[in-house]
Amino acid sequence: MKEVTAFAPATVANVSCGFDILGFAIDELGDRVTVRHAEESRLKVTKITGDGGKLPYEVERNTCTVAVQAMLKALGYTGGMDISLDKGLPLGSGMGSSAASSVAALIAANRLLNDPFTKDDLLPFAMLAEKIACGAAHADNVAPSLLGGFVLIRSYHPLDVTALHVPKGLHCTLIHPHMELNTADSRSVLRKQVSLQNATIQSGNIAGLVAGLYQENMGLISRSLQDVIAEPSRSVLIPGYEEIKEAIKEAGALGCGISGSGPTIFILSPDRDIAAEVKTISQKVFDKIGLDVDLYVSEINSRGAYVLNEII
Amino acid sequence: MKEVTAFAPATVANVSCGFDILGFAIDELGDRVTVRHAEESRLKVTKITGDGGKLPYEVERNTCTVAVQAMLKALGYTGGMDISLDKGLPLGSGMGSSAASSVAALIAANRLLNDPFTKDDLLPFAMLAEKIACGAAHADNVAPSLLGGFVLIRSYHPLDVTALHVPKGLHCTLIHPHMELNTADSRSVLRKQVSLQNATIQSGNIAGLVAGLYQENMGLISRSLQDVIAEPSRSVLIPGYEEIKEAIKEAGALGCGISGSGPTIFILSPDRDIAAEVKTISQKVFDKIGLDVDLYVSEINSRGAYVLNEII
Repeated sequence: MKEVTAFAPATVANVSCGFDILGFAIDELGDRVTVRHAEESRLKVTKITGDGGKLPYEVERNTCTVAVQAMLKALGYTGGMDISLDKGLPLGSGMGSSAASSVAALIAANRLLNDPFTKDDLLPFAMLAEKIACGAAHADNVAPSLLGGFVLIRSYHPLDVTALHVPKGLHCTLIHPHMELNTADSRSVLRKQVSLQNATIQSGNIAGLVAGLYQENMGLISRSLQDVIAEPSRSVLIPGYEEIKEAIKEAGALGCGISGSGPTIFILSPDRDIAAEVKTISQKVFDKIGLDVDLYVSEINSRGAYVLNEII
Repeated sequence: MKEVTAFAPATVANVSCGFDILGFAIDELGDRVTVRHAEESRLKVTKITGDGGKLPYEVERNTCTVAVQAMLKALGYTGGMDISLDKGLPLGSGMGSSAASSVAALIAANRLLNDPFTKDDLLPFAMLAEKIACGAAHADNVAPSLLGGFVLIRSYHPLDVTALHVPKGLHCTLIHPHMELNTADSRSVLRKQVSLQNATIQSGNIAGLVAGLYQENMGLISRSLQDVIAEPSRSVLIPGYEEIKEAIKEAGALGCGISGSGPTIFILSPDRDIAAEVKTISQKVFDKIGLDVDLYVSEINSRGAYVLNEII
């Protein structure tokens, strides 16, 4: 193999009542990474497009190279690679931008070496890159970007990740408002203590959401999409959030939440028509507010990251 | 119909990480209630056996008559009934004793009137009886006793109850130590605030447990059976709890927890042989401590309460 290009999808983490433990992957939107063998025995970022010049080329700071370096080290591989990144995702949007880059790089580099690792094996390398990008080795974007579907991160110590059943028809509308929201700010508004009552409500909702996914019970999914822990503090940082929450109900959407630590909002719908209607409604809400937004409609991606192209 | 006898099973509530939201029903152990038409237009408790004389005969205080009275009122039925109760469950054991009585009474009375209500319809009447018995209208014993299997109570306001998939082979060992444990005491040791970290761990575990039940993944069920909210405070009230927790692991059990608010301990196992082995091990642990215990082994009851006998 001479050259491999892989795609890794955007992801929604902190799925409502699944704060810090649940993420899912969407279709179409994502990052593309091409990896080639190099003559010299080193990693190099040769090109980055679509990032507005914001991402670093340094091997120790770029999430693609950080992830691939960890993978090559685990493999004891001493050859070199050239890596180029085509960003399809906006930075700092809460759609798992850094995760998509490192996951696409890992899938491409792994294939270039004839797949020595499974997708599950690659997860810890992608988490290392998250640590560089976000300061913490989160798995709730990298795991769904790798594996696809809804992914539960039951525990970090030890790491315990499981893919959940995805009901047919389930679609997502994403609203990305053109505003900056610092992840550190978004985390600092969270209270360190929660009431026993709210902890119990959150448990009931995440249990209901998981049961609803397996039962393909859209009503139960909808009733369970309530986050009493993070959303009340975080939603005030996102203009239009409450208006969207109200407006989508009438269109028949299941519920909404803040994607990652925001500012992107995700809305789940039982079919593509409703997801598209939600997109139209959301555009109107933000037109009224006067804030530019990008809007996407996508099925839940059950496939995860994959190889787009390989040159032998 | 002249006379109907119904059986309602014992139940485990507060299933580990499913504190306050998850219960399950067990087989064989439970209460029997016989209901007959009476000539007078009133309810009467005619006989109670197996309670050591401890349960009240007053219609307003007995959980059987409280539940049936609410049902008859909803139906606008003005005829009378005689009710007799045969307690198979020890009182105040944390095995859903009051719930089994009211549920068996409802199933018998409903059949006597040719089943005007579904099982789901009967739930609020049984919850009213729980309020009389325990001071709060809990559903986590009455719902599984009625419906069988694992039952999630996602929410109380409004009531949202759903039965979960039960993996084949799953068995339960119950240990009922001969000691009194006051529910109020058991509730007072709970902290009113929990850390965000523990709330997140609990969410991950309940999500993992529900996913494990649907996946029939005994490993995931086992890893998820951890309660970081109620167990640390409550387990110290139950002698032998930590020893049991340690001892059952080696036998291959999935995990354990405090049934309801104790003192009964439940242990889940992947098959009957291991559940029986756990029973033997548990007996030895309590022999050493010098505390008398009753021990039961049962499959998870997927059927719930049912009519045992009817005389036409």
